[in-house]
Amino acid sequence: MASILRHSSRLGIRATSLALPRGRNAYATATPYFNNEPSKPVVMTSIPGPVSKKAIEELDSVFDTRSLNMICNYEKSVGNYVADMDGNVSFYAQIASIPVGYNNPHLIATMSSKEAVDALVNRPALGNFPPGYWASLLKTGILAVAPKGLGQVFTAMAGSDAIETSYKAAFIYRRRMERGEGVDFTPQEIESSMKNQAPGSPELAIMSFKKAFHGRLFGSLSTTRSKPVHKLDIPSFNWPQASFPQLKYPLEDNVEANKKEEERCLAEVEDIMNSWHCPIAAVVVEPIQSEGGDNHASPAFFHGLRKLTKKMGVLLIVDEVQTGVGSTGKFWAHEHWNLESPPDMVTFSKKAQTAGYYFGDPMLRPNLPYRQFNTWMGDPVRAILFRGIIQEIEKHDLVKNTAETGDYLFRGLQELASKFPEKVQNLRGKDRGTFIAFDTPNRDAFLKKMKTFGVNVGGSGDTAVRLRPMLVFQKHHG
Amino acid sequence: MASILRHSSRLGIRATSLALPRGRNAYATATPYFNNEPSKPVVMTSIPGPVSKKAIEELDSVFDTRSLNMICNYEKSVGNYVADMDGNVSFYAQIASIPVGYNNPHLIATMSSKEAVDALVNRPALGNFPPGYWASLLKTGILAVAPKGLGQVFTAMAGSDAIETSYKAAFIYRRRMERGEGVDFTPQEIESSMKNQAPGSPELAIMSFKKAFHGRLFGSLSTTRSKPVHKLDIPSFNWPQASFPQLKYPLEDNVEANKKEEERCLAEVEDIMNSWHCPIAAVVVEPIQSEGGDNHASPAFFHGLRKLTKKMGVLLIVDEVQTGVGSTGKFWAHEHWNLESPPDMVTFSKKAQTAGYYFGDPMLRPNLPYRQFNTWMGDPVRAILFRGIIQEIEKHDLVKNTAETGDYLFRGLQELASKFPEKVQNLRGKDRGTFIAFDTPNRDAFLKKMKTFGVNVGGSGDTAVRLRPMLVFQKHHG
Repeated sequence: MASILRHSSRLGIRATSLALPRGRNAYATATPYFNNEPSKPVVMTSIPGPVSKKAIEELDSVFDTRSLNMICNYEKSVGNYVADMDGNVSFYAQIASIPVGYNNPHLIATMSSKEAVDALVNRPALGNFPPGYWASLLKTGILAVAPKGLGQVFTAMAGSDAIETSYKAAFIYRRRMERGEGVDFTPQEIESSMKNQAPGSPELAIMSFKKAFHGRLFGSLSTTRSKPVHKLDIPSFNWPQASFPQLKYPLEDNVEANKKEEERCLAEVEDIMNSWHCPIAAVVVEPIQSEGGDNHASPAFFHGLRKLTKKMGVLLIVDEVQTGVGSTGKFWAHEHWNLESPPDMVTFSKKAQTAGYYFGDPMLRPNLPYRQFNTWMGDPVRAILFRGIIQEIEKHDLVKNTAETGDYLFRGLQELASKFPEKVQNLRGKDRGTFIAFDTPNRDAFLKKMKTFGVNVGGSGDTAVRLRPMLVFQKHHG
Repeated sequence: MASILRHSSRLGIRATSLALPRGRNAYATATPYFNNEPSKPVVMTSIPGPVSKKAIEELDSVFDTRSLNMICNYEKSVGNYVADMDGNVSFYAQIASIPVGYNNPHLIATMSSKEAVDALVNRPALGNFPPGYWASLLKTGILAVAPKGLGQVFTAMAGSDAIETSYKAAFIYRRRMERGEGVDFTPQEIESSMKNQAPGSPELAIMSFKKAFHGRLFGSLSTTRSKPVHKLDIPSFNWPQASFPQLKYPLEDNVEANKKEEERCLAEVEDIMNSWHCPIAAVVVEPIQSEGGDNHASPAFFHGLRKLTKKMGVLLIVDEVQTGVGSTGKFWAHEHWNLESPPDMVTFSKKAQTAGYYFGDPMLRPNLPYRQFNTWMGDPVRAILFRGIIQEIEKHDLVKNTAETGDYLFRGLQELASKFPEKVQNLRGKDRGTFIAFDTPNRDAFLKKMKTFGVNVGGSGDTAVRLRPMLVFQKHHG
């Protein structure tokens, strides 16, 4: 991120020593998407400043504010810049979930429409009483960007329930295959399910990877392995975790070692499938482990995983809650792999502003209605918003912009890394759009200092600085 | 429901034999909330009609439609009446989740506001970057109707995650009490939590009741006991269920038997607490078991449950997802009990159009931030909508209307029951607003037939016809 370059003194590098990446001037003249953005972050007070401090105190009496980072004035936020209550203006994208800018005019028009107001006021129970426009809204919105081979969708409310409903689909599918098509539930299954006991409520598992993050409800949390703070004191399922490749950087200097590491991890996956005390219904994996430290694996690893899951009759769920919707320089991160057969399910949320999972195989629809069901089944107004986001992405070719901006940022950071190798370590995310990260000593102090410059960069894992700008982040924001 | 009275021929009762409740004429002149409502349901085609059939077929190619009841034209829906694609107009309230009428003018104005559009377009990560207005929105909205004694709120997206986050709060609290205030996690706890093993991920349970419904994700589903179709093939936690009182009707003729039945259930709760293989962190209970068959218990039962949970150091979670927001003739159903000390947590969703749980004890905030957290932490636009709903309820005194309408309906059904005791059995919900139900033979055929009259009444449990009209359902709708 060019602001990281600009404020690189916090890496212990004197600003004057920084050579800007070649070609920067040419880039800087590209047309900005937002004409009314500030030219740079503005920090006038400490953060939080006096107005914010008072507001936080008021809020804390009724709502836990200990995770609060900044209390915002969204009316005054624009494009890539979020404003706080004291007039400070910073870069920030709401945990990677705002794709096309604060107060994006097209989205304002979309959300001011009669259609949006109708969807808010007359909220349908989508499974029972969908609106007449639901098919067309799905087809022109959510499904217009469906991953190749996955033409059906189950809509949900947020990332965790997108993940959990995909797990339910996997369990139902698994038992359907074991039972044989058309075979009814046995009386024992029906009876024991009501007691939370097998065979009706069977022992089946989802395999995830070490350092994975898939959510915080009981099923999803059982597959989350990123940090103890999420898991402590919460009962969980006895489900297995496999090692995720720990690649060495730079990749080009560690080809053989990394290949071996990925083979080791795949062998571990297979070994667990063969030895776990109960059947594994699905493997869930992030294309890039996001919360767990921006851990990458090569397309070959994912090809191997797809091949292995196919061989073992285990479903493959690709969790694109954080990687989806453009930020890796493709609409879906798993498109980088060019798999021969698609994942069985792909989950989405965050930048999509609505959630759910895509699937292709009609057998992933349960044999009976109401087995996957809830009152709202997602939110049509957020599906309308996602359609508006897709339109905006297509109109401005924002996935391409993200690939190009990412390339520019990566090369800038590469130069920094070569000059200050102890400060910019394990730079990763080449050819993955702006989904870039590096490790640095004293990471948390660094992030804190960046905030005082109006750059809200986050961390992932223990030592990584992760970049998650919007899709409207351009080279001139450097 | 007066339409039930009108169409009572489906109960095998000839319409001419129906004496309307006394005083009906006086009631019928009350001012209608919606001047533009149809005067009665209009059914012109079979449901689904030809236009709807085509639309359903189109939708089914991408979205499971087997639970679909009607495909709707919400633009043409008004007040208590939902319109379908063929011009049919029926009573329906979206699984008890539309409180103040389709196209309610106040809600249209609220959702057309700059504030609402801002909350949609610039969706904040509420835990990290809440908007400046969040405290005031909570206080004038969600918290303006907080149950007595519960002044704090954790906001969520839908019923299931409201429930699951309340369970997480209960587990975290339990371990905090066991560990002792200020005592750190041990290295073993930290390490074992990452492996989904005790002591970090402990064996702890939530107790629920037979026939309860609390949601469909992995933790909530483990406490749901209403129907096998929700639970089959899904792994669950080994958590206990206690018997919920099965009362005999009419109540006034079965006082002693019902008292004994409730004592039996309370004794069972205590017995399970003493004998279960792991500690029970909380008991979760619906004020009226809704999905499970409209099963009621007396205030004395809930007093007993509160007393018992206090004595045993177990938290009491009251699940008001379906009973909350007015339909029982009080804003919260548990207000009918006049408990001496409030429940520890109360969950809400459905008619609130947003979800979460209320709590009072500051110790129910985890000792560290980020233990209860997610990207969105609810949806501010839905919180704005709830505030609009609250305003509308207060302006028109709709809780009182619901109490009165419920009283009217109950008396009408009582007369029917006395004339046709084999057709209207176990009438229940007296003094519980419009939250009324009765059992009838061939229930499903009855519900199907009612639909052809434009009355979408639902069932609960195996045999119950349940009424769930909106808060704007008035006597003249009979």
